[in-house]
Amino acid sequence: MNIAIKEAMKGIGFVNPNPLVGAVLVKNNKILAKGYHKIYGGPHAEVNVIKKSKETDGATLYITLEPCSHFGKTPPCTDLIISSKIKKCVIAVLDPNPIVSGRGVKILKDAGIDVIVGILEKEAQYLNKIFFKFIKDKIPYVFLKTAITLDGKIATKTFSSQWITNTLAREKVEKYRNLFSSILIGANTVVKDNPSLKCKVLENNNPYRLILDRDLILNETYKIIQNNSDKKTFIITHENNYNKKIFQDLKINFYVNFITFSDNENLKDILKKIGSYDIDSILVEGGNKIISSFFKENLFDGGEIMIAPKILGDNCAIPFLSGFSPLNIDDSINLKNIKIHLYDDNIGFEFQKEEGCLLV
Amino acid sequence: MNIAIKEAMKGIGFVNPNPLVGAVLVKNNKILAKGYHKIYGGPHAEVNVIKKSKETDGATLYITLEPCSHFGKTPPCTDLIISSKIKKCVIAVLDPNPIVSGRGVKILKDAGIDVIVGILEKEAQYLNKIFFKFIKDKIPYVFLKTAITLDGKIATKTFSSQWITNTLAREKVEKYRNLFSSILIGANTVVKDNPSLKCKVLENNNPYRLILDRDLILNETYKIIQNNSDKKTFIITHENNYNKKIFQDLKINFYVNFITFSDNENLKDILKKIGSYDIDSILVEGGNKIISSFFKENLFDGGEIMIAPKILGDNCAIPFLSGFSPLNIDDSINLKNIKIHLYDDNIGFEFQKEEGCLLV
Repeated sequence: MNIAIKEAMKGIGFVNPNPLVGAVLVKNNKILAKGYHKIYGGPHAEVNVIKKSKETDGATLYITLEPCSHFGKTPPCTDLIISSKIKKCVIAVLDPNPIVSGRGVKILKDAGIDVIVGILEKEAQYLNKIFFKFIKDKIPYVFLKTAITLDGKIATKTFSSQWITNTLAREKVEKYRNLFSSILIGANTVVKDNPSLKCKVLENNNPYRLILDRDLILNETYKIIQNNSDKKTFIITHENNYNKKIFQDLKINFYVNFITFSDNENLKDILKKIGSYDIDSILVEGGNKIISSFFKENLFDGGEIMIAPKILGDNCAIPFLSGFSPLNIDDSINLKNIKIHLYDDNIGFEFQKEEGCLLV
Repeated sequence: MNIAIKEAMKGIGFVNPNPLVGAVLVKNNKILAKGYHKIYGGPHAEVNVIKKSKETDGATLYITLEPCSHFGKTPPCTDLIISSKIKKCVIAVLDPNPIVSGRGVKILKDAGIDVIVGILEKEAQYLNKIFFKFIKDKIPYVFLKTAITLDGKIATKTFSSQWITNTLAREKVEKYRNLFSSILIGANTVVKDNPSLKCKVLENNNPYRLILDRDLILNETYKIIQNNSDKKTFIITHENNYNKKIFQDLKINFYVNFITFSDNENLKDILKKIGSYDIDSILVEGGNKIISSFFKENLFDGGEIMIAPKILGDNCAIPFLSGFSPLNIDDSINLKNIKIHLYDDNIGFEFQKEEGCLLV
């Protein structure tokens, strides 16, 4: 099952919003084949592994997620398993979708296949934290990333911020940009840094680019608008801006997608709208305002705070988070399920609302 | 030599302001004896190891520091080495005192002993960072310790500060209280927390307690004054307070030592005065004001910033450091020679001005 999980991880960045799935086929204590779900819409891990082998009769299939039993983009995997005369099926975790959970197991058992469920169950859940969250409530998994000095600042008072963390830490951010389906930043960051938000790890697999721009201050001069040939740039703005010339201009001439919200809608409503585009996860790389909003609304699933051994020592420098007012240490925000990452002399505090850290 | 260094470390907390020294006696590839400098004023490591063995004739002595060649509190070790008919002497590092450095080696060589210098030299220097610093300029080695939230705060706006870091991190502080000869805190901390500053690791080996109390606001009601039977409490105050009744009262009735300074004297002058009491090292556990002063004057040798995964998110909370005003990230204070310590979900950034971290 460990091998199957490692196989599954090869799909990172390619399968969203599908789950990462790995499979291993074993017979007479020998591995016949290994496989994984390679790309969204493509064959499932079971198919990939079974097609590789001619001796499936009597074999044991190890699979990180309960096989599907319905026609989706591909035919049901349960049918293939049964027709391959596989004798035993070891499953790490059941399908999280309550409507179909356990159905695949039942079909296999009814066909006389020996089924075991729950081997490395937790690891398989952590592997698919994003999928498990998104399938449940259709709200994207939200991961907050920030890079700070030892005194918790993201920029000097003059907004200088490059670079706080070292190369190793910034390389980790590139991995995150590959793992999550989208990146969210504020319009101010676009104005200041003019980033392209392309994924350097896998150039052909860019995440969606979400820009929170309440007052629609952006225009066509920025890279994120101009380099939108993949049509993955989204602007999230107040509905009042709909009638502005620039709104229509960006939409029609630069293929920018718009998500609008009204005065009655909050951050959670916006997340739901993002989810409706099948965007299953968001890497939030915002500044003080955006990070503070997600903390205030308690709308994050995890995050990593990267720290460099630098000190600004200036009360006027920009903190990564503000707007709280605790009177006692016990009233502070306590991050949970901490995993510490080392990047030479920088460190990262990964935190998760639910048990289990990300497998990157 | 590795074994000798480990022997030397057994003396931590007992030998200041003497160096930590370990020795191993070897003959025919077998260890005859191991030993170390156990207590300030007591026999040197060489004596301890040679006295343990009856077969010193023709043996090799491994020693972490050049043997002394002068009468101090004990007779010269070079004499004992020669009279023991030791054949070879392997020395990690020369005596840092320029007046005697190399003299021990010369005496041994002149007596026909084979001498090798420089084996694990750096490790032996790091082992005695405190001693090497203090012997050079008679200014104590200064180590800054602070415990902060992820946003760099040491307390809420209402000065609540207990506890930011976890038990493991606080246990490390106890080790520091054993390693350094003295602890420095501000009078405000005494008023607020009323600490006793005793060493829990070794109860009979308390560090000197130095309180920076410019305006002499302390009185006999505090633990640090009342529990002064070991006479290790020092108050550092402006000379103008000399004529105050409380000054004389604390001095005569509570055995408090006073270090006074004038308007013309700065922090470095105060450190020199502390050094004149043979206090070779200071663990600075101050709040914002004291830590900021040491950074401003660039008068620290090392330190550890301990971080807990808690966030106050309040601009009015108390930062561990302030008073700087950098415009660019490149102008920030860059801590050097970083060693990261893990305390479960807390971490510590140890930094050192000179290469090599502390061996605790």
